[in-house]
Amino acid sequence: MNFVDMIIKKREGGKLSKEEIAFFVKGVTDGSLPDYQISSFLMAAFLKGMDTEETACLTMEMAHSGGMFDLSSVEGFKVDKHSTGGVADTTTLVLAPLVASVGVPVVKMSGRGLGFSGGTIDKLESIPGFRVDVSEEEALGFAKAGNIVLMSQTENLTPADKKLYALRDVTGTVDSIPLIAASIMSKKIAAGADGIVLDVKCGSGAFMKDLESAEKLATTMVEMGRHVGRKVTAVISGMDQPLGMNIGNSLEVMEAIHVLKGEVGGDLLEVSLILGANMLLLAGRVKTEAEGKALLLEQIKNGEGLKKFTELLRQQGGDIGIIEDFSLLPLSPAVLSVKAEKNGYLTHMDTALIGRAAQETGAGRAYKEQPLDFGAGIVMKKRLGDAITAGEEMAVIHSQTEQKCQSAASYIQQAITIGEKPEPLPPLILRIIS
Amino acid sequence: MNFVDMIIKKREGGKLSKEEIAFFVKGVTDGSLPDYQISSFLMAAFLKGMDTEETACLTMEMAHSGGMFDLSSVEGFKVDKHSTGGVADTTTLVLAPLVASVGVPVVKMSGRGLGFSGGTIDKLESIPGFRVDVSEEEALGFAKAGNIVLMSQTENLTPADKKLYALRDVTGTVDSIPLIAASIMSKKIAAGADGIVLDVKCGSGAFMKDLESAEKLATTMVEMGRHVGRKVTAVISGMDQPLGMNIGNSLEVMEAIHVLKGEVGGDLLEVSLILGANMLLLAGRVKTEAEGKALLLEQIKNGEGLKKFTELLRQQGGDIGIIEDFSLLPLSPAVLSVKAEKNGYLTHMDTALIGRAAQETGAGRAYKEQPLDFGAGIVMKKRLGDAITAGEEMAVIHSQTEQKCQSAASYIQQAITIGEKPEPLPPLILRIIS
Repeated sequence: MNFVDMIIKKREGGKLSKEEIAFFVKGVTDGSLPDYQISSFLMAAFLKGMDTEETACLTMEMAHSGGMFDLSSVEGFKVDKHSTGGVADTTTLVLAPLVASVGVPVVKMSGRGLGFSGGTIDKLESIPGFRVDVSEEEALGFAKAGNIVLMSQTENLTPADKKLYALRDVTGTVDSIPLIAASIMSKKIAAGADGIVLDVKCGSGAFMKDLESAEKLATTMVEMGRHVGRKVTAVISGMDQPLGMNIGNSLEVMEAIHVLKGEVGGDLLEVSLILGANMLLLAGRVKTEAEGKALLLEQIKNGEGLKKFTELLRQQGGDIGIIEDFSLLPLSPAVLSVKAEKNGYLTHMDTALIGRAAQETGAGRAYKEQPLDFGAGIVMKKRLGDAITAGEEMAVIHSQTEQKCQSAASYIQQAITIGEKPEPLPPLILRIIS
Repeated sequence: MNFVDMIIKKREGGKLSKEEIAFFVKGVTDGSLPDYQISSFLMAAFLKGMDTEETACLTMEMAHSGGMFDLSSVEGFKVDKHSTGGVADTTTLVLAPLVASVGVPVVKMSGRGLGFSGGTIDKLESIPGFRVDVSEEEALGFAKAGNIVLMSQTENLTPADKKLYALRDVTGTVDSIPLIAASIMSKKIAAGADGIVLDVKCGSGAFMKDLESAEKLATTMVEMGRHVGRKVTAVISGMDQPLGMNIGNSLEVMEAIHVLKGEVGGDLLEVSLILGANMLLLAGRVKTEAEGKALLLEQIKNGEGLKKFTELLRQQGGDIGIIEDFSLLPLSPAVLSVKAEKNGYLTHMDTALIGRAAQETGAGRAYKEQPLDFGAGIVMKKRLGDAITAGEEMAVIHSQTEQKCQSAASYIQQAITIGEKPEPLPPLILRIIS
């Protein structure tokens, strides 16, 4: 097969055959295709698109490009979830213990973050002692014993995705729906769960800025799952403001613990319950989403969720003292309070800019190998629709230096719009597709 | 400047600034941009296009990416020509001596061929002893003494074009009008002539299959020339059949000598006269194209053209004996005659397929470093519109082996359509743009 002919075919909007896509993924995986040809192909695919069949092929070939995690020895219907990434979006730390606590095994491999703030793995690593590098064997043991494991993606999974993602990142070909869908779903399929709940974020702080593209991505991923016999539900949730109040690694761990203790409610809790309830629905543990939400909420009230979180920390070496004593978690020394500049109502937040502010504090990465400052971040004090008085505290910034705090503060000021009248609040859940 | 942002800008159809294009060409030339980013950019530029200003910028930056050949010490208006490439298209060997013989200096750097058959440089190298690698100093000497030099592109000219062309060739981004225009014109501008005549081929054997794209390419290149104060004329000529009768390196040298001797006429002579006359027009040597054609034809009749060709051979070490004795030129040993399969009229030739047949004989390259068989090729016996009798000879193939001859013959049979009635002949000259 001639790869240049295949590039030209896609460039002219042609549809690739199963054999062509298999040839491509094999060439990516074994290194026989040079990067410059792969990147030219990626740009052609970006601009000319790929249809459902092509995307399904690409997904499956990528899923099978390395090892496949076999969860069959774990009893029950195993569930996994994935978020396309938002700001103050730490639902995994809330819902995984809740779902596991009602007897549904949660086996989740996560990644590190790039951009706004850390990924789940980074957040867990901010907990002293917590070990994210878990072998498959060990993971199976944890899943059997306690129904929960949160771990880094193992080395041998989806090497084609790793290679393609790294290239897309530096060739301007990241935000393509078929390529995103294939990247996410290939990893989820290789990671072995029977059911997958996808949290597709939509709004000013998300990859998908509008409902149309969020729906397209969600539908594509649900179809990919159906193609391979996995149950998939996609929840499209709003990202027009940070989901929780805390942005940053240890700060988000703190907020998750607050939620599990039942001390705070709000959007982070609500989205966690909806995602978790949909995981229970897929597993057949409940009959309706409402039943699922009620069951999970009960696990907060009766302390079972927090107990499961404690078990998770213990099994992976994390300091369980943090649950009662947040001072055991890192918090960066420089602190700056951001004040409102005028009276009015909080009408708009450019959430991507708030994410940028968090990155500025050291909580997120500008490039892949950048070390994170686990104790850095932002505590937001207001939500959309809140009445604001000039001089009132809008956010508190934590960072290593006064300068970084200042820089983050200027992004926050830019990101916030204070209007004279309140505006209608954006919906939290836009659609559920399954 | 962040190159990924620039890739994304072009991907979204944005217009690049002068500074961005300069940054790109500098990065290509000095190797600071990785190939995988360049190729992703090339595909974005291919699919989203570049406007006249962007193309002009790219052309100028590429022209200045290496040395610029300074012809100012040569008296008179120096002319150059370029063909976008056809089959049996050896006008340079005919017109360069004719134009030089009336006192207009022709200084032409040429390339090697890829595909159908050799380039001018390959054809010249089929002449025993002919030296195409001429230093700039030597070239200036030849131009001053005899008004003519045909040479390889010097090493230090347009390194950015060399790099980009090599990448385009293997990334499916060759046939983009702005990229082709910038590639051709950057070389022509760096090569220093005051006036340039472009032969833009159009038809089944050309890069540009239809008049619309040929006009677009021609207009773009004429505009690029105007941008930098060079006089440029583009002639769009038909390539719906081989221009001459001989395809192959030594075979084309033989045909050029026949034409210079006044022994054969036809389309090769006609296009050579029109291109040459337009070079004389640019140089101000004649007032009309008709006057130019008549003057050049006179140089055939009076033997001055052939005399200049002999001088060219002598100055660059070529064996002048070939002019009277073609057996001094290579001719491959295996010979096969292709016969017509039925009666009728020659109504269509897939000229690209005939070019493919020539490549099969060894006359053209399938890949860049492939050595050529200078004595291989095809002598066509019929032209469009000719009446054909079954069994009549359509072409004679020369190659190293019987097998290669057979392979070429099957392409020729495929390429030829014999219809019941003659069809109107395609025009030889479609448009002249200046």
